[in-house]
Amino acid sequence: MTIGILGTGMVGQILATALFARGNQVMMGTRNVADTLAKPGNAGRGMASFSDWHQKNSGIQVGTFAEAAAFGEILINATSGMASLAALEAAGVDNLGDKVLIDISNPLDFSKGMPPTLSVVNDDSLGEVLQRQFPRVKVVKTLNTMTAALMVNPAAVPGRHNVFVSGNDVDAKATVKTFLTDQFGWTPDSIIDMGDITTARGTEQLLPIWIRLYGVLQTPMFNFAIVK
Amino acid sequence: MTIGILGTGMVGQILATALFARGNQVMMGTRNVADTLAKPGNAGRGMASFSDWHQKNSGIQVGTFAEAAAFGEILINATSGMASLAALEAAGVDNLGDKVLIDISNPLDFSKGMPPTLSVVNDDSLGEVLQRQFPRVKVVKTLNTMTAALMVNPAAVPGRHNVFVSGNDVDAKATVKTFLTDQFGWTPDSIIDMGDITTARGTEQLLPIWIRLYGVLQTPMFNFAIVK
Repeated sequence: MTIGILGTGMVGQILATALFARGNQVMMGTRNVADTLAKPGNAGRGMASFSDWHQKNSGIQVGTFAEAAAFGEILINATSGMASLAALEAAGVDNLGDKVLIDISNPLDFSKGMPPTLSVVNDDSLGEVLQRQFPRVKVVKTLNTMTAALMVNPAAVPGRHNVFVSGNDVDAKATVKTFLTDQFGWTPDSIIDMGDITTARGTEQLLPIWIRLYGVLQTPMFNFAIVK
Repeated sequence: MTIGILGTGMVGQILATALFARGNQVMMGTRNVADTLAKPGNAGRGMASFSDWHQKNSGIQVGTFAEAAAFGEILINATSGMASLAALEAAGVDNLGDKVLIDISNPLDFSKGMPPTLSVVNDDSLGEVLQRQFPRVKVVKTLNTMTAALMVNPAAVPGRHNVFVSGNDVDAKATVKTFLTDQFGWTPDSIIDMGDITTARGTEQLLPIWIRLYGVLQTPMFNFAIVK
């Protein structure tokens, strides 16, 4: 499968590595390829530079947002939430077409300090913003309620826990559910279809408690389970 | 133990019944006792009138908000979120004193239709609003992330699932944790202390997904579990 990942940060790297390892052709998209390759790492956060990472993962292609959007039969929005709309605009409406866009972003606003607030909340969501702005794209919000290492490897947290799916297009959601099971190993019964894209309001508003649980538990390796 | 419950709706009734059955002295508070006793039931929602319910539970006392606040050594805010501030104002700062107030309310705003939005959200929470307005009261937010039948009987949903606690006063939180275990049967390891009252932003923002999960699962008898 060809997959275009918008975003070259740590989340994009983890997704790209996992999807490439499963035999997919992967292109990561960024605003400016030269700038991304020249960016230094962040030693304080234990992050190698993108170019160091890419040297070890040279089978993964790197292009502009537009090139990655054109490349993938399935697209993943792994940009930071505050940058997502601009990233999709740079990708371009023709390159996005009517493809499935797996939106894993959250509208986290760090501008007022920690913990972050949400820049879109309550009676709207980032998933809806993207869907409204790009009505032909089939936005499916999912995986945004957990750390990236768990997105691609749910077994890293033992036991039963859940991933949520929101989107307007039933076929696109079916495609994404199969993607979750086949690419990452989510079991069908761990996937909860929440309904249309407005239900992204529910999953994006899990972030405020997620961030605080990260502080309480001192690890990002946890997930929500719905028990009944 | 003497317990004052602010609110005479279904949630207050379920709490009062459970706490009375465990041998506590319970007074429910309302704005106007005569009005509450005269209010008809809601046959469509399967709700008996308060007076019908109270005839079967006549050991539970009924008074004004002020009387219930004065009565209880522990207070529970079981009013609807949009009415909570007015209820506490009616209870009166002297009657509330420096008591522990278990705040189980959520700022659900039904005025714009279904599903409700939150009237306080993102960079504030109802828990914080109440704590700011009544700085002497020890507000402990808890139990607001589940249906009332589960608050008082966690075993009604099998398996491991969680209840969150937020509050500024460490001793008040210890009191509430003991209250949760002794009165309702929550196990100590199911209680997650989230930190100060600002963490109520996290638990109140669980409501948007709770409401949508209620629709998906077709039952309110579910809960969140944090799995790590």
